[in-house]
Amino acid sequence: MTNEPHVVWHEHSVSRKEREELNGHRGCVIWFTGLSGCGKSTVANLVDHKLHSLGVHSMVLDGDNVRHGLNAGPGMLKERHGEDFAKRFGLGFSAEDREENIRRIGAVAELFASAGIITLTAFISPYRADRDGARALQDEGDFIEVLVDAPLEVCEKRDPKGLYKKARAGEIKGFTGIDDPYEAPENPELVLDSAGKDAETLADEVIDYLRGKGKIK
Amino acid sequence: MTNEPHVVWHEHSVSRKEREELNGHRGCVIWFTGLSGCGKSTVANLVDHKLHSLGVHSMVLDGDNVRHGLNAGPGMLKERHGEDFAKRFGLGFSAEDREENIRRIGAVAELFASAGIITLTAFISPYRADRDGARALQDEGDFIEVLVDAPLEVCEKRDPKGLYKKARAGEIKGFTGIDDPYEAPENPELVLDSAGKDAETLADEVIDYLRGKGKIK
Repeated sequence: MTNEPHVVWHEHSVSRKEREELNGHRGCVIWFTGLSGCGKSTVANLVDHKLHSLGVHSMVLDGDNVRHGLNAGPGMLKERHGEDFAKRFGLGFSAEDREENIRRIGAVAELFASAGIITLTAFISPYRADRDGARALQDEGDFIEVLVDAPLEVCEKRDPKGLYKKARAGEIKGFTGIDDPYEAPENPELVLDSAGKDAETLADEVIDYLRGKGKIK
Repeated sequence: MTNEPHVVWHEHSVSRKEREELNGHRGCVIWFTGLSGCGKSTVANLVDHKLHSLGVHSMVLDGDNVRHGLNAGPGMLKERHGEDFAKRFGLGFSAEDREENIRRIGAVAELFASAGIITLTAFISPYRADRDGARALQDEGDFIEVLVDAPLEVCEKRDPKGLYKKARAGEIKGFTGIDDPYEAPENPELVLDSAGKDAETLADEVIDYLRGKGKIK
């Protein structure tokens, strides 16, 4: 740095490759998608746990850490930022808001993957175009779309957060599978049968996939 | 996972502490702030480079990787997402847009710090309240605000991107230091004299600070 305007400032950016070398493995995005209650977050957190035990640098992005911060709703933003701000930037569940929700998550997943981290995202992400947008940010092979598959009836019977009940009662509008569509992936890298197998088995299937692709040892 | 609705699904979340143990150091946020052309990004990238050489897991968030993705402007969002979407969610440089820009960056910095990463952010971040919002997401000692300090005249003389020239010509409106305020931190953890010292020296001052605070060995 200098006061002389003719001197170029060199940027010494650390490359993704160098970050991956420090971590001992490549970064990538594992994108879990499926209906509410299908087990996305459970399986993603289990995979994260197994990766961590193997010394792999991983991170989960899910409703717990994203919907309260980065993608907070209007109600959460109001107090600190005021009503107009909350109305413009706070995310609800309209088609447009879902689109922005997934757009931001895709961008953050890309940042984490660039840091050499195996990044697990667990969101319903019901629209195909939005998931494809997140995929487009990754190189071939670095975006692993995982459909956590269970029939609507099974998810609704589980209803771990009581959301289906509220949606059926009309208390929640635009609920995926009830009055908003779920567009299943056409060519996911992996389909997990969450109606027929337990979470432990499904998490192992993801780990096996990563091993098979040389993502981890 | 089971079809029986009475069975509770256990979440095996990896804690921040466990992620930090794998990395061999704690995560934190180093928040660089200062006028355009003060050298924030140069110093942040140099610190990142030095940390990486020391085997520390670090990441830089700056205009290069954030303004083209997560916080893209309306022009970049338009093609893929349409005009209405771009208008609502695309970020410009109004006070409200700057507030949302920094809010999102603070939230993402928190995600990275939670992954046990020393996270360096390099944005003008001109408003005190917005920086304080990012600080509020971290525990005491985990948010290190670094003022990269140089008089406006020096920054304007450097003008590495020709932005001051455009602002003076009225081609850019709301430019920090020209027709938009810069609210300097009142109690930054660190002040770097970027008018009087070179980037290498300033980066070493940050490294020394981190050593002094036990953040790195």
